[in-house]
Amino acid sequence: MTIFGLKEAEVATLVRAVTRDDVTREQIVDRFARAAWSGLAEPGDRVAWSVIDALGAGGALTALIEKRPLVGGTPDELSEGVARWQPRIKAESVMIALRQAARFGARLRVPDDDDWPASLNDLGPHAPIALWTRGTAEALAALDRSIALVGARAATGYGEHVTMEASAGLVDRGYAIVSGAAYGIDGMAHRAALASGGLTIAFLAGGVDRFYPSGHDALLTRIAQHGLVVSELPCGQPPTRWRFLQRNRLIAASSLATVVLEAGWRSGSLNTAHHALTLARPIGAVPGPVTSAASGGCHQLIRSGKAELVTNADEMAELAPLPGRGSSSDRFTEHERAEVIRVRDALSDRSARPVADVAARSGLAVTEVASVLALLELEGLVEERATGWRRSKKAGE
Amino acid sequence: MTIFGLKEAEVATLVRAVTRDDVTREQIVDRFARAAWSGLAEPGDRVAWSVIDALGAGGALTALIEKRPLVGGTPDELSEGVARWQPRIKAESVMIALRQAARFGARLRVPDDDDWPASLNDLGPHAPIALWTRGTAEALAALDRSIALVGARAATGYGEHVTMEASAGLVDRGYAIVSGAAYGIDGMAHRAALASGGLTIAFLAGGVDRFYPSGHDALLTRIAQHGLVVSELPCGQPPTRWRFLQRNRLIAASSLATVVLEAGWRSGSLNTAHHALTLARPIGAVPGPVTSAASGGCHQLIRSGKAELVTNADEMAELAPLPGRGSSSDRFTEHERAEVIRVRDALSDRSARPVADVAARSGLAVTEVASVLALLELEGLVEERATGWRRSKKAGE
Repeated sequence: MTIFGLKEAEVATLVRAVTRDDVTREQIVDRFARAAWSGLAEPGDRVAWSVIDALGAGGALTALIEKRPLVGGTPDELSEGVARWQPRIKAESVMIALRQAARFGARLRVPDDDDWPASLNDLGPHAPIALWTRGTAEALAALDRSIALVGARAATGYGEHVTMEASAGLVDRGYAIVSGAAYGIDGMAHRAALASGGLTIAFLAGGVDRFYPSGHDALLTRIAQHGLVVSELPCGQPPTRWRFLQRNRLIAASSLATVVLEAGWRSGSLNTAHHALTLARPIGAVPGPVTSAASGGCHQLIRSGKAELVTNADEMAELAPLPGRGSSSDRFTEHERAEVIRVRDALSDRSARPVADVAARSGLAVTEVASVLALLELEGLVEERATGWRRSKKAGE
Repeated sequence: MTIFGLKEAEVATLVRAVTRDDVTREQIVDRFARAAWSGLAEPGDRVAWSVIDALGAGGALTALIEKRPLVGGTPDELSEGVARWQPRIKAESVMIALRQAARFGARLRVPDDDDWPASLNDLGPHAPIALWTRGTAEALAALDRSIALVGARAATGYGEHVTMEASAGLVDRGYAIVSGAAYGIDGMAHRAALASGGLTIAFLAGGVDRFYPSGHDALLTRIAQHGLVVSELPCGQPPTRWRFLQRNRLIAASSLATVVLEAGWRSGSLNTAHHALTLARPIGAVPGPVTSAASGGCHQLIRSGKAELVTNADEMAELAPLPGRGSSSDRFTEHERAEVIRVRDALSDRSARPVADVAARSGLAVTEVASVLALLELEGLVEERATGWRRSKKAGE
């Protein structure tokens, strides 16, 4: 018995190792085929997704290998797709990726898994074909209450400070923190979430067997222990610029909202924000000094109306309130009565003044002054003396 | 001959001294009456404005003095108005205010003057009854191309720096700078405008004979020499909290746009912004560090949608473009082709790679890669060698 020309027992053992023990043969075929497709098609390949949607992952892979006609796109799209995918077909490379995943304790997740993040399906034909993960099931499940905190690698001390406060504050409010594990803002977002005992999820642009950037190897190891490291690329695959850009769509799609904490005019985190915009996910941006180039991209997002200005974890949480949690609404409706201001202006802290004097000083009628004074007296803000009225000692501004 | 019971010759001399030599008797009566009303009614007194609108300033004053019926409001409004105004009637105090104005070289401006700022009429019945000014006619005329720069007294070094740049930059672009002469942001806005050879206009909450705050006496003296100092209150009148709040409506109304540069949650400059909002004038707010309380009010204005985020003089100028001046529009439409990114990812700076290799690495078809390479070669970004293609040395990111 073979699966795609490979020994079935060997394939089954490997697939079970990276999925579950109780998968059926049909599920093994599907998972193996998705593992293969995750290496054949570049992330976000709409045509590959459509072909798989039409034929199933296994059927599509068989047709591709056997050079039989595909369905799921226009003839041009399909022939261009085949031209893209065929140069990469190599059965052994799938086995190597599976073996590597098993060695690192990575899991292969596919859309028919119960714990597949439903939010990713909002990407439509740009959804991932499969996900490779290292970490806890709890963190995977927490994606449904996650906020992405992203920003520039070239972060300032200010940006890192705000990110730390934001990440810790959102964890305290029950959110998981999604980011891209880059230096600067991303790293701080993950670190602060871990330090607060929160769940954090890192999306990588290459395989989960080789952590990138290497300087974040220890951080990503901790994330894999307590949270989750995710990639749509199989083990062994290096990150490329294209893969970083497509990785950003997963960050945007998997989170309830995306917040850009610090970003220059050309920061990659703006790309994440644009993915969130395409998905109609709320976007927040943290302002900073206008003299700091590191906040230029944030200011542009706000100016263009793409992002809401957010200054703290409360305001970030308001972008995507969690059910059952009251958001701290703004009860601030300060409306000072004009007469009150004018009467208080006309009073002294020291000498008591007759009502007629207060009326002349305030430009109000005697009757108006009298009624305002009565109101202020109830509030303990003024007091009557033998010679008239004065402000109470205790009445501070 | 008398005017309101005062010697006509004396009144005429004084009124001429603070207006023009060629005023008619009727104009003298109107101006004297407006001078009187500017002391009887507190700033923004809608009923006073309506009574004057109905009866003329002179007719309204006569009726008030002679306790004859007024028109221009409901019976209640009118009787409350009379109760407010009557305690203040004192012919001699108007003469003192006029004499003081003449002594300080102040001018009395009334709505039928050719150079009355038309923008103030947008205040409707809240428009000032008269203006007392010290300064140049040129600065008065420049109100029609002015932007208000306002902010907290408790400004930070950051706020003052940004204000300086903004004021100088707007002067360079042909705007006059309006502000309130307070410490902090206001003072810096005036100073930077003067230092840039620009016109600047200060609105005060008390008479123009007594500069407030006293620490800005030298600054206001320079503004009176090169720009304009304005108040709707007659000489001798002290500022009060109410008058500060009403002064803010003049700042908002006289300017094409209002920009808040730094403001805490309770800064008076937010009041100016709200006046601008009521008048449908554009409002800008400058962001700052979210860790700075001095920017909290600015962030709130932006979050609430009341103000647009602005980071420099160009963006402030875009709030209220001057006719005949091109605004620096955003020509930035970066749209990178996906294939280009993927092909460049797949190339090396050093070793040349065959097209088939580039195709496999990029996940694109050979034909796609070939056409992208041709395009990139035209742009000088890639070069062909005997063994294939590589990135050009000169092609930086």
